[in-house]
Amino acid sequence: MTGPEIDRLITLLARLPGLGPRSARRAALHLIQSREAAMVPLLGALGDVAERVRPCSTCGNVDTRDPCAVCVDGRRDDGVICVVEDVADLWAMERAGAFSGRYHVLGGVLSALDGVGPEDLSIPRLEARCADGRVREVILALGATVDGQTTAHVIADRLAETAPGVAVTSLAQGVPVGGELDYLDDGTIGTALRARRPV
Amino acid sequence: MTGPEIDRLITLLARLPGLGPRSARRAALHLIQSREAAMVPLLGALGDVAERVRPCSTCGNVDTRDPCAVCVDGRRDDGVICVVEDVADLWAMERAGAFSGRYHVLGGVLSALDGVGPEDLSIPRLEARCADGRVREVILALGATVDGQTTAHVIADRLAETAPGVAVTSLAQGVPVGGELDYLDDGTIGTALRARRPV
Repeated sequence: MTGPEIDRLITLLARLPGLGPRSARRAALHLIQSREAAMVPLLGALGDVAERVRPCSTCGNVDTRDPCAVCVDGRRDDGVICVVEDVADLWAMERAGAFSGRYHVLGGVLSALDGVGPEDLSIPRLEARCADGRVREVILALGATVDGQTTAHVIADRLAETAPGVAVTSLAQGVPVGGELDYLDDGTIGTALRARRPV
Repeated sequence: MTGPEIDRLITLLARLPGLGPRSARRAALHLIQSREAAMVPLLGALGDVAERVRPCSTCGNVDTRDPCAVCVDGRRDDGVICVVEDVADLWAMERAGAFSGRYHVLGGVLSALDGVGPEDLSIPRLEARCADGRVREVILALGATVDGQTTAHVIADRLAETAPGVAVTSLAQGVPVGGELDYLDDGTIGTALRARRPV
């Protein structure tokens, strides 16, 4: 009863992460009923992004220019590259505001199960970036999962060969800020205990 | 770091019902990274709907034609009008597939708290539709809330005056299909008990 145009919009909205069929219907109806306030602006914003945003050929970030704003920012340190799994992680690092070097987006992590090998990720491009002599340190900011840590080890091994002068580090593991011990898993508590520091 | 175009897209997506700032970021990134599979189709579907979908001037449904597909469907019974609060409720009734008359979308319910009076809803238009002599019954399919039931009573009172030949009914209240007594609120159990029927 909704007609093919509305059905198609609902189907496409339902494919967005975070929206199911029910919320996609509500979202579509909201857009239709708030035409000027919601539909027209979203259409414009989506069109702008579709037309102008591209992946950065240096780091893999997405931006309206290539190289991206992070790669061309003169205030950032060329000597440190933070390796992240995807652009969402790059955004999360930037929101934290604690890092002022460059980034390298892998585009995933190695996974034997999903058949993702080093050639599927941007590891060769990372090695090329590390070979130019300006990079002092590569920070591996990968998830504390089995695949994330496997990927970190593979990258560390490869960089030890291809860019032996570059220090490879990873994010500290431990108790999250605001985390209560009672709610933490045993692995995190064990890791935090082994990595304990003098106060 | 995301640039004004992406920021604007995230802001607009976050205003959709069901999406918060976090899921809006994920949705925006998904669209950017699945350009051909997600962004371009959504842009097309949104453009189609924005260009072609309008409210039906008879019943208040939304469709690409006016009167809408439900209002012009010759297989439907002109003698019964189902009154719903909004288009989402009309869609829900149609999904249930149990009704084959016409609809009337009120555009809300009466609410003293929110300052919604009868003139803010399409009650006068409903009265006009009921005055043409073809309508035998008006089914009030409004929510079992205080405002919904107040609205139902007001409509019933007004129709008793302006269209005295029209029967006004409302949806039955009781135990939902698949509902377990243990999980039902006391009000529903009490209502279902008072409205008990012979087996």
